Amino acid sequence: MKSFIQIPFDSHFPIQNLPFGIFSTQQNPTPRVGVAIGDQILDLTAITTLFEEHVPELKDPSNVFSQSSLNSFMSLGKPLWQATRRFLQNILSNGNPKLRDNDQLRQKAFVAQQAAKMHLPAQIGDYTDFYASKEHATNVGVMFRGKDNALMPNWLVFIDSFYIVRYINLKKKRSRVHLPVGYHGRSSSIVVSGTDIVRPCGQRLPVKDQPPIFGPSVKLDFELEMAFFVGSGNKPGERIPIDQASQHIFGLVLMNDWSAWEYVPLGPFLGKNFGTTISPWVVMLDALEPFLTNGPTQDPTPLSYLEHNFPSAYDIQLEVKMKPNESDSFKTLTRSNLKYMYWSLKQQLVHHTVNGCNMRPGDLCGTGTISGRTEDSRGSLLEITWNGQNEIEFENGIKRKFIEDGDEIILTGYCKGEGYLIGFGECTGKILPALQ
Amino acid sequence: MKSFIQIPFDSHFPIQNLPFGIFSTQQNPTPRVGVAIGDQILDLTAITTLFEEHVPELKDPSNVFSQSSLNSFMSLGKPLWQATRRFLQNILSNGNPKLRDNDQLRQKAFVAQQAAKMHLPAQIGDYTDFYASKEHATNVGVMFRGKDNALMPNWLVFIDSFYIVRYINLKKKRSRVHLPVGYHGRSSSIVVSGTDIVRPCGQRLPVKDQPPIFGPSVKLDFELEMAFFVGSGNKPGERIPIDQASQHIFGLVLMNDWSAWEYVPLGPFLGKNFGTTISPWVVMLDALEPFLTNGPTQDPTPLSYLEHNFPSAYDIQLEVKMKPNESDSFKTLTRSNLKYMYWSLKQQLVHHTVNGCNMRPGDLCGTGTISGRTEDSRGSLLEITWNGQNEIEFENGIKRKFIEDGDEIILTGYCKGEGYLIGFGECTGKILPALQ
Ligand SMILES: [Ca+2]
Ligand SMILES: [Ca+2]
Ligand SMILES: [Mg+2]
Ligand SMILES: [Mg+2]
Ligand code: NI
Repeated sequence: MKSFIQIPFDSHFPIQNLPFGIFSTQQNPTPRVGVAIGDQILDLTAITTLFEEHVPELKDPSNVFSQSSLNSFMSLGKPLWQATRRFLQNILSNGNPKLRDNDQLRQKAFVAQQAAKMHLPAQIGDYTDFYASKEHATNVGVMFRGKDNALMPNWLVFIDSFYIVRYINLKKKRSRVHLPVGYHGRSSSIVVSGTDIVRPCGQRLPVKDQPPIFGPSVKLDFELEMAFFVGSGNKPGERIPIDQASQHIFGLVLMNDWSAWEYVPLGPFLGKNFGTTISPWVVMLDALEPFLTNGPTQDPTPLSYLEHNFPSAYDIQLEVKMKPNESDSFKTLTRSNLKYMYWSLKQQLVHHTVNGCNMRPGDLCGTGTISGRTEDSRGSLLEITWNGQNEIEFENGIKRKFIEDGDEIILTGYCKGEGYLIGFGECTGKILPALQ
Repeated sequence: MKSFIQIPFDSHFPIQNLPFGIFSTQQNPTPRVGVAIGDQILDLTAITTLFEEHVPELKDPSNVFSQSSLNSFMSLGKPLWQATRRFLQNILSNGNPKLRDNDQLRQKAFVAQQAAKMHLPAQIGDYTDFYASKEHATNVGVMFRGKDNALMPNWLVFIDSFYIVRYINLKKKRSRVHLPVGYHGRSSSIVVSGTDIVRPCGQRLPVKDQPPIFGPSVKLDFELEMAFFVGSGNKPGERIPIDQASQHIFGLVLMNDWSAWEYVPLGPFLGKNFGTTISPWVVMLDALEPFLTNGPTQDPTPLSYLEHNFPSAYDIQLEVKMKPNESDSFKTLTRSNLKYMYWSLKQQLVHHTVNGCNMRPGDLCGTGTISGRTEDSRGSLLEITWNGQNEIEFENGIKRKFIEDGDEIILTGYCKGEGYLIGFGECTGKILPALQ
């Protein structure tokens, strides 16, 4: 499959990908739906008559694609996502003259990504962060737990959503991982890649048994995550069965779950809700199908509502780079892979709705920090520097334990196909000083 | 202050109250903004020309009041809420002939509450539940904790958002309550009073050290709470100072935070996110001003960002009634009061934004379960039956430990003024059997 648009071999956005996003331009500052192809954006509002002709099942393309979020399109359901994707691959392909040879339409329909401003891809009604990497859990558990702090085992088994307790569990090697652990996050503070994040303030406790003090976070971190957007939801009181889960998942983005560890370390409230950054292009599940692979063996076998006997992990290579404020260049901090996750995306979604909790189009579910087994695949500074015990060295003697003001973090990721990449672009963010 | 509308002495909605809500009628099924007065609703879309004449600072009343949520109105800010409220009290008052003597307009503008369908008052972007009652925390802590399960004190002080750990803290009488504990809840499953709730299913562990089983909750509960709507928000990275907090709070509703204890008891994920019910009428903070009173003494003195030296608790009498499925009548289960809360609403809001977390118009913050010091003021069945150890007796020998299918719960509440009530109406819900 080739497009008439020139695609460099290392582009994240070949015709096999076609991720959806919301963009605007200086000429037309109204946010609208576009699809990334090479270094261009195909403006779907410019080709609505083609949609009317070729995808008649898509009832009102000019309305759907002129929205400032993907929620409308998401709510149409997988058959229409797929019809749209097939049509776009067709109209962008080498062999189809319709758009290729219509200079006037091409002029109107393509926008250079460089010239566009990207927006949040969806209006996110609810955001959940899971905690699906055993390796991350183990690292953090070992780090934070004193040996004398063991909880009784009969406590642990009750707990399904407070991940610190699961840490302990894992450390004691008594873990019985029966379900994906998740917690509700803050949707108001989810921002698109490139948005600066202000260092949070709060109460912390530098001296044990002394009163807390107020001040800026001194243990500010990134967390390497991915997240999926729910496409079609479920009604309150209903649940999504595991064999239908992929029908409900629209696509994936990169996610940096910024974390201030002294306001956590145990909770997802003030230490997390000051900001979460996602990449702007939503890669559809269909584009990722060729990269399905087996996830880790699940032992014990999950209860039947969580069980799937087909490959459900995705082989997505991930990388985090950091540029200290004083430096000019980025250094790679870690390389990981989505396939390390213990629980699949489908299992996360199914578990989330098992109690009848209703999902809506545009809801976002984070995977939790994606750490691998090796030291060079740890998904947070907390793990990489072992809670600040070790420093990371950059050029010119620059060192870091955690993120300092002006530092920048880039997450990136892609699947490697034969002769092409299915990429996610970048998820970037810079930390600004705390407000006084 | 008297209205030309007849108000029975025990009405929750005299002219001193004027709560806002979203309603629709059979004749006009489009949800729109109304204000409760006596047993009527004043349809604000019917009197927009009066608004244009008398409240010109309210730029586009026909747009604001024809919305299906209060978010637009909320985002206008307190001076406009107050101008609107003043105008409404004026136009509804006995002495003002404008609406009183205009039969045609009255015909159009008033709708019997009985004939209206109420909707969620706002599109809730984010929902946070606090945990601000020491009494509730103590009850649940004592109940769930085995004596041998003590955590080390140095653990506890780190924890600001996982309330189970705070329970333990309190039990050990080592509590140092430095901040309001909160967690993010699920906004998709917040429903308006009168909506049935399906009993949730999930994994539970009837036999210790055995694998979990899947099934419907057998410990389904209500939680007596109130909640405030954020009116005007704050920008990401900014915080709301304590002396401006009440400028940002639009008003209050009753809230039933349905809880399935076996999927909690320690976490607010699956045990909470299947459904939360709020009352339809939002009582504005200005209507509650006469009922400001001192809350509990705060010891230790909170850090300065949380400190306020003026009365910030509200004297709101609360009641929970239950009707078992087999019964025809409601029995009062508990009587409590919002003023028992350790942390004020202002402190909750300020703490929520101290890290720069941005609030948006329509965000909802629950107070947490409101239990008093006495046994007859406990705010949940968990506390009332002491985790099922004691049964509640209803007429004809009917007994309950937790909520059974078909049971109904009503929350209600009011402030008692001189010759009038400022009431919240009712927050009701019935439990339907779990899906198979
Ligand atoms: Ca996370
Ligand atoms: Ca609660
Ligand atoms: Mg975050
Ligand atoms: Mg709830
Ligand atoms: Ni939310």
